[in-house]
Amino acid sequence: MTTAHTNQKFTSVGSRPVRHDGFDKVTGKALYGADIDLPGLIHGKILRSPHAHARILSIDTSKAEKLAGVHAVITNHDFPTQEDKAVSKIPGPAINLKQQTSNILASDKVLYKGHAVAAVAANSAHTAEEALALIKVEYEKLSHVSTVEEALSNGAPLLHDQYKNNIASHDVLEIGDVDKGFNQADLVVEREFRTSTVHQGYIEPHSATGWWTANNKITIWGSSQGHFQIRDRTSLVLGVPVSAIKVIPMEIGGGFGGKTTIYLEPMVALLSKLTGYPVKITMSRSEVLEATGPTSGSYMKVKIGATKDGKITSAQADLKFEAGAYPGSPVGAASNCIFTPYAIENVRIDGYDIVNNKPKTTAYRAPGAPIGAFAAETLIDELAEKTGIDPLDLRIMNGAKQGTPRVSGINNPLIGCIETFQTTKEHAHYQSPKSSKKSGRGVASGFWINGSGAACAVANVNFDGTVNLTIGSMDIGGLRPVAAQHVAEVLGIHVDDVNPQVGDTETIGYTSMTGGSGGAFKTGWASYEAAQDVKRQMLERAAEVWETSLDDIKLENGVFTHSSDTELKMSFRELASHLPETGGPVVGRANLDPRGPGSAFATHVVDLEVDIETGKVTILRYTAAQDAGKAVHPSYVEGQIQGGAVQGIGWALNEEYFINASGEMANASLLDYRMPTSLDLPMIEALIVEVPNPLHPYGVRGVGEVAIVPPLAAIANAIYDAIGIRMTELPMNPAAIRKAINGE
Amino acid sequence: MTTAHTNQKFTSVGSRPVRHDGFDKVTGKALYGADIDLPGLIHGKILRSPHAHARILSIDTSKAEKLAGVHAVITNHDFPTQEDKAVSKIPGPAINLKQQTSNILASDKVLYKGHAVAAVAANSAHTAEEALALIKVEYEKLSHVSTVEEALSNGAPLLHDQYKNNIASHDVLEIGDVDKGFNQADLVVEREFRTSTVHQGYIEPHSATGWWTANNKITIWGSSQGHFQIRDRTSLVLGVPVSAIKVIPMEIGGGFGGKTTIYLEPMVALLSKLTGYPVKITMSRSEVLEATGPTSGSYMKVKIGATKDGKITSAQADLKFEAGAYPGSPVGAASNCIFTPYAIENVRIDGYDIVNNKPKTTAYRAPGAPIGAFAAETLIDELAEKTGIDPLDLRIMNGAKQGTPRVSGINNPLIGCIETFQTTKEHAHYQSPKSSKKSGRGVASGFWINGSGAACAVANVNFDGTVNLTIGSMDIGGLRPVAAQHVAEVLGIHVDDVNPQVGDTETIGYTSMTGGSGGAFKTGWASYEAAQDVKRQMLERAAEVWETSLDDIKLENGVFTHSSDTELKMSFRELASHLPETGGPVVGRANLDPRGPGSAFATHVVDLEVDIETGKVTILRYTAAQDAGKAVHPSYVEGQIQGGAVQGIGWALNEEYFINASGEMANASLLDYRMPTSLDLPMIEALIVEVPNPLHPYGVRGVGEVAIVPPLAAIANAIYDAIGIRMTELPMNPAAIRKAINGE
Repeated sequence: MTTAHTNQKFTSVGSRPVRHDGFDKVTGKALYGADIDLPGLIHGKILRSPHAHARILSIDTSKAEKLAGVHAVITNHDFPTQEDKAVSKIPGPAINLKQQTSNILASDKVLYKGHAVAAVAANSAHTAEEALALIKVEYEKLSHVSTVEEALSNGAPLLHDQYKNNIASHDVLEIGDVDKGFNQADLVVEREFRTSTVHQGYIEPHSATGWWTANNKITIWGSSQGHFQIRDRTSLVLGVPVSAIKVIPMEIGGGFGGKTTIYLEPMVALLSKLTGYPVKITMSRSEVLEATGPTSGSYMKVKIGATKDGKITSAQADLKFEAGAYPGSPVGAASNCIFTPYAIENVRIDGYDIVNNKPKTTAYRAPGAPIGAFAAETLIDELAEKTGIDPLDLRIMNGAKQGTPRVSGINNPLIGCIETFQTTKEHAHYQSPKSSKKSGRGVASGFWINGSGAACAVANVNFDGTVNLTIGSMDIGGLRPVAAQHVAEVLGIHVDDVNPQVGDTETIGYTSMTGGSGGAFKTGWASYEAAQDVKRQMLERAAEVWETSLDDIKLENGVFTHSSDTELKMSFRELASHLPETGGPVVGRANLDPRGPGSAFATHVVDLEVDIETGKVTILRYTAAQDAGKAVHPSYVEGQIQGGAVQGIGWALNEEYFINASGEMANASLLDYRMPTSLDLPMIEALIVEVPNPLHPYGVRGVGEVAIVPPLAAIANAIYDAIGIRMTELPMNPAAIRKAINGE
Repeated sequence: MTTAHTNQKFTSVGSRPVRHDGFDKVTGKALYGADIDLPGLIHGKILRSPHAHARILSIDTSKAEKLAGVHAVITNHDFPTQEDKAVSKIPGPAINLKQQTSNILASDKVLYKGHAVAAVAANSAHTAEEALALIKVEYEKLSHVSTVEEALSNGAPLLHDQYKNNIASHDVLEIGDVDKGFNQADLVVEREFRTSTVHQGYIEPHSATGWWTANNKITIWGSSQGHFQIRDRTSLVLGVPVSAIKVIPMEIGGGFGGKTTIYLEPMVALLSKLTGYPVKITMSRSEVLEATGPTSGSYMKVKIGATKDGKITSAQADLKFEAGAYPGSPVGAASNCIFTPYAIENVRIDGYDIVNNKPKTTAYRAPGAPIGAFAAETLIDELAEKTGIDPLDLRIMNGAKQGTPRVSGINNPLIGCIETFQTTKEHAHYQSPKSSKKSGRGVASGFWINGSGAACAVANVNFDGTVNLTIGSMDIGGLRPVAAQHVAEVLGIHVDDVNPQVGDTETIGYTSMTGGSGGAFKTGWASYEAAQDVKRQMLERAAEVWETSLDDIKLENGVFTHSSDTELKMSFRELASHLPETGGPVVGRANLDPRGPGSAFATHVVDLEVDIETGKVTILRYTAAQDAGKAVHPSYVEGQIQGGAVQGIGWALNEEYFINASGEMANASLLDYRMPTSLDLPMIEALIVEVPNPLHPYGVRGVGEVAIVPPLAAIANAIYDAIGIRMTELPMNPAAIRKAINGE
């Protein structure tokens, strides 16, 4: 269901074409990261730390090197030495290269179980694996910390000398005066919350293949969310110019933020340099879970005050997020998002980035925001209960609007926050009675910042009237059709007549990664501009064919017409057939760095049932409303909403890194790391709210992330509604619920 | 040695950088046509006609289809039915699709030994070959014609009902009045000439791999001189839109005109459609010689008249060229070229395109021109002898200049014809005495039209200051560095900082084939324009960085400077590092269809010795002067001059299709088809004459072909000088020379 707050009419934008890459993907023709094969390819395997925290005293690779079939063994010391401070050498946030490199291969210490220590390249994967056992590493075991609270405890072991108390950073965001605000409040709700480390759970494990030829040109094949970012980061770790590396993107089997950084790429490149052969490494599922980047576990203390009429006067949060082994938790993003759905005059947020002995966290869909929202939206629900106001009415009353100041210092542009509250409230789900007395209903909202970045597109007109479109953004969730729809809309042609593809780092201009919900926004816009460049030239050709003035011609719905001579009419296809004799091919290009990908707001409502005996929660009905700006391809927007909700449900109810006393993840397989399957869930109903983004030519906002923000709290609120217990720790699995019921 | 007729100064253009693709090519990393491998790849083989001319009564493929491992067998009838007339549906000359298709797989008749009759796809090449033996073809053998004269003889069998006397076309080019011209002449020379069929002799046999997926998208991998042309022609034969086909160009191991058309591509596509697998077919050397397109054998009668002072008053030629099995000899180009080095008021040329039972001819380096020049330049030499004028003085006296009318109807633009005569005359080789009394010296000149066509280029600036350049022209003889030099020249950066690559048919805009000596001209120009597009944007960024007016900034030698503030200076590289914060990436595009690739003239002088006893000719010294316009990469221009001369020497002295009484090529291997090797030849001295082409921004002309035009006559003239016998038939091999000496 779509609720449109606009009158702009479209033809291709807003339609639901079959994705151009769909056929190849369902028939198995599409090639993913591990599917590349090359002449002379050899295979790599990685030796990983058995300890959560230890000093490396020595590594002896000599026996492994002597094994027949082994070509090379590398450790951290084979990479160039890097300074231990953050530097800005490539687009994006500054990077501490010593830490980045040490996460790829441990230097003096291992900081988590599974931390890579050495890599072997051999004729076969089996030989490489055999060689791992021949590498002798001498460790001095250190005590470890697995949670925020352990990391901050007195006498806790330090992971890095430079971070006192394991606190890598502490930032404060503040507007107004929270003390004054709480004084104005008639009631104040305050609670502590804890969340577990969870993984994105993409289907495709990481794989990278590298070929470093003796003229110092490096080609890397792999799947990622941004091949330019992979190129740039790998260049820094290897100490080579970005132009020495070409990254050829393979199809990606899911990323959700987890494929925005590098693990294998510098290793395969270096192993290739040493051996002369192309080298491939593909991770196992356990390696993915133990040694790539999940999102933070956290400890939060949050407090909200309101008048008895329900006006929120003050909000304060203390957010302590696990970074894992190296700094970089999403606590900053969480701080920016936690209270943004509401207009609150007095806000203070203390955000702490805390290192501990787990894999270094990486982005996971709206990084940090679901964690913060779990706390804030639980308290909003509690406020609604205590003031006796319907939770959606309370939100509508306090909802953020255009102009509302944010804690980040900016004011809201035109947003659709209250519209998602309204849409949810008016929807049949919320209007209907609960299915049974036993069941509970909960609502929660969420905000995500949305990002953008540079994007390029090139459009080539074929003489048969079709258009080849090359984009620089990886297509994860349907970017090819979305980009094609932008072109089709501008030119008035059918989207099937646009042939979109993703270029490698040498074919297309620099394009920032598919992340921050910015793909459709920036690459859609680049495709729009490339099409405009095509349109300008096609109008000139029409003027040439008709021997008339350019000003007299227009293109509408794919037909060129003349302002005064109504006999003159020509379809795009017809004009394309005249290109050879009117100056040759037409190519449009776009290179831009567009700002303002809009803000994303979502409101979810969930009905569920709690089995008191087992503690098992069953989701009965789930409805998710989200402002998409203009939904270019509603099916994919719905898919994003549904997918985000499902990941949030898994995070809420079951997913966690189960860390044992030795600091090891005890459930590093998809059998034990429990993600929801289709059997666990009802159909998620997606409600698209369209408040067009005034900064995009077609009103597009980012849509990929915010749907994961509300579910954690929505489910907690529904559980409260069902059993009267506020769950403040994740996951809310059967054991936790039984424990809560039993008051343990 | 370069003789420059210009003062224009360049930095990158005119330098001799190492080619960007050189490393991959010498280390074996570069992938050629047959080097592609794909999941599920199966292999094809072709059944070919054992007869030179026969009717196909029936083809029974049933046994072959039943062989274990065989997936499909196709014949001509599996292709869509096509009309038997020339149609213009794609850029380039009109194509008779029935003939094109029948040359790929014979329909009702086989027209030459080796003509493809059926193709098999099987699990392995060996199984496919085994299956060929199980296909039963019933033929009705017909009598055949192997030369022009046989084809025109009374009672000759007709290859095609519609061509009377096997004459596919007869065209006349005429200016002035030849009879009047001959009346003005004091002396007239006239002779008959015969040349043999010769092959381009590229090292890499044809190979194509096709994958036709059930959504009717076809991908073809192969090496060719123009992947867009391969795409377009294949689309016509298969009856699918051009946009249904993507051609991915592999590196090309030589083409010389022979890789401008299709043989295997429609077969592998169709076999893939029928089987669902990707299918590869690679030709053997014999298949290349017997069943791809060599150039014409010919019969010519040519006549030139002059005054006793050496002024040529009239010239007439009767050119009868073998087309092979289907129409399309290069007689038209030969007609246009034969007398063009000279200003002659009265000219008539009758050109006949004659079908006979040999493989259909295809382009071979300056198609037709060497054949015509063999005749005309022999007669010019005879005129010089008879008038007692030095052959180069005679040429200088009659040489074509800017404004001289051509037989084609146009007047010469600025050309460097007389400059090549002069350069040769003044060169030490011509000025030196012959090495011995036995040796002979000959000179000859030649003209080639040069072609152009559409070309596209896209240039992406990396933030490290390097530039990725994608072009659409296949790189055969060094186009990557040449294109990069154009970009480097415009931007003032080093050519090694430009990274050129060839895009596939979807990545880059339509670009016509690398042929007609047009590659460096058109794709160089496109690269120049793409760089200009980059330059414009970089100037805007400099203005943004310096917060100053665009008009105050210029880019010279890779440095941005300010007109008044001399403190302001920034290298291209430095500005590139500022792109991320000034609007993002910079991409330049060019799509153009430039005209005027200049005219190419060449003059060669050769010293040789004839062994009277054996008839063997030994080349002692060879010097070749050629107008290159501006030589972008002199080493590659020299390489083209040397390569053309060498192919001409092979054609003159040894190469021929030796056709036996059954109409079969009896020497279909490189052991028996005798091409010159480095041991047979002295170093060819290349003299680059630079008369800049006023129609190209850097003065570039086409250089790839004309060097093959003079050698045939130059060697014939030198043989005459050595032994006093005018050789009028090719090849002038030992047997032919012994026969001439013996007066047989």
